Amino acid sequence: MINPMAMEVVCLDLEGVLVPEVWINVAERTGIEALRLTTRDIADYDELMRYRLRILDQHGLKLPDIQAVIGQMAPLPGAHDFLRWLNQHFQVIILSDTFYDFAQPLMAQLDYPVLFCHNLVTDATGRITDYRLRLANQKQAAVLALQSLNLTVFAAGDSYNDTAMLLAANAGVLFRPPQRVIDEFPGLPVTTEFTELANQFRQASSRRIPSI
Amino acid sequence: MINPMAMEVVCLDLEGVLVPEVWINVAERTGIEALRLTTRDIADYDELMRYRLRILDQHGLKLPDIQAVIGQMAPLPGAHDFLRWLNQHFQVIILSDTFYDFAQPLMAQLDYPVLFCHNLVTDATGRITDYRLRLANQKQAAVLALQSLNLTVFAAGDSYNDTAMLLAANAGVLFRPPQRVIDEFPGLPVTTEFTELANQFRQASSRRIPSI
Repeated sequence: MINPMAMEVVCLDLEGVLVPEVWINVAERTGIEALRLTTRDIADYDELMRYRLRILDQHGLKLPDIQAVIGQMAPLPGAHDFLRWLNQHFQVIILSDTFYDFAQPLMAQLDYPVLFCHNLVTDATGRITDYRLRLANQKQAAVLALQSLNLTVFAAGDSYNDTAMLLAANAGVLFRPPQRVIDEFPGLPVTTEFTELANQFRQASSRRIPSI
Repeated sequence: MINPMAMEVVCLDLEGVLVPEVWINVAERTGIEALRLTTRDIADYDELMRYRLRILDQHGLKLPDIQAVIGQMAPLPGAHDFLRWLNQHFQVIILSDTFYDFAQPLMAQLDYPVLFCHNLVTDATGRITDYRLRLANQKQAAVLALQSLNLTVFAAGDSYNDTAMLLAANAGVLFRPPQRVIDEFPGLPVTTEFTELANQFRQASSRRIPSI
């Protein structure tokens, strides 16, 4: 078997692929309905985040409170096994627009995969005072940077903020996307189960990879 | 605590840091002394690799034979615990000039960390016919690519082929280097134990990280 260039990286979105949506879960578990709003309700991300930070302040919720809530969440059913299989056959990097401080309790449950995301700013009391996007369009930028290192990149994600990454990748796959993303990006294959996603990556690979 | 920009990646060399030198072990375990030669003996890497592949051919050793030998090797004492600690506090990427096909049995013993390296070319019988360097100076290039994604990069390695990576990193640390590397790069801190290396990364971090 000839493996001319078999260094293949898989870039995965986090929320909606490996773990549930964090803000929606925080809203449910704290009972604060206002935290359910997403970019569908407030299109401008910065405006949405400042709104969320104000709501947290109004309820006196600090970073450790939110982390405790997130710590009760679990990865999506099957996600851990899928990730374990993926790690054995690809180099895996998770690209998420969440915040490191939020993701950490979930990363522990997934055996600490590599994660590139963003950061919150907290004061000495743990109050979240601000957030820092590490880089605009970080998902797409990461795919291009990895390709510049002569790595082949496959990617999967579920929503609008993943599509630039999926289109830049050597193979991009939608996983459980909303219907309007399917409609808007008819060129991207759609999967709903981890076995299907695994098969998409197996088919994209230049190597012979055992099924999940 | 303010974490203005805390996405910190650690890039680690593999052989000499986490696992023993592969070719030297293959020489010892197969009894083929000629495989002990390194770039100290044949300075030109391409010449050295072609020499090694000829020796393997002469002894009828194919990729599965070498993989079986490597499968008997183990990570260096303490390496697995060190890597586990590192994964909890940093995003970890292993940058090695070894070949994916060789590293795989050792990666399994380290729970499959992310690895960027090179590839061998084999024919249908498993004979190693050639090798492919994925990228010249891939270690330094990876550090620069990660920094271009607004990630802070710390790095550790033991030898000459690591120094460009260590100098490009935001903090570079030598781990168990030969004396002439110490002499030639007096600006790089020298460590010999994993606890010391962990402390170097803790000190370089903008965050408060518990000791190993």
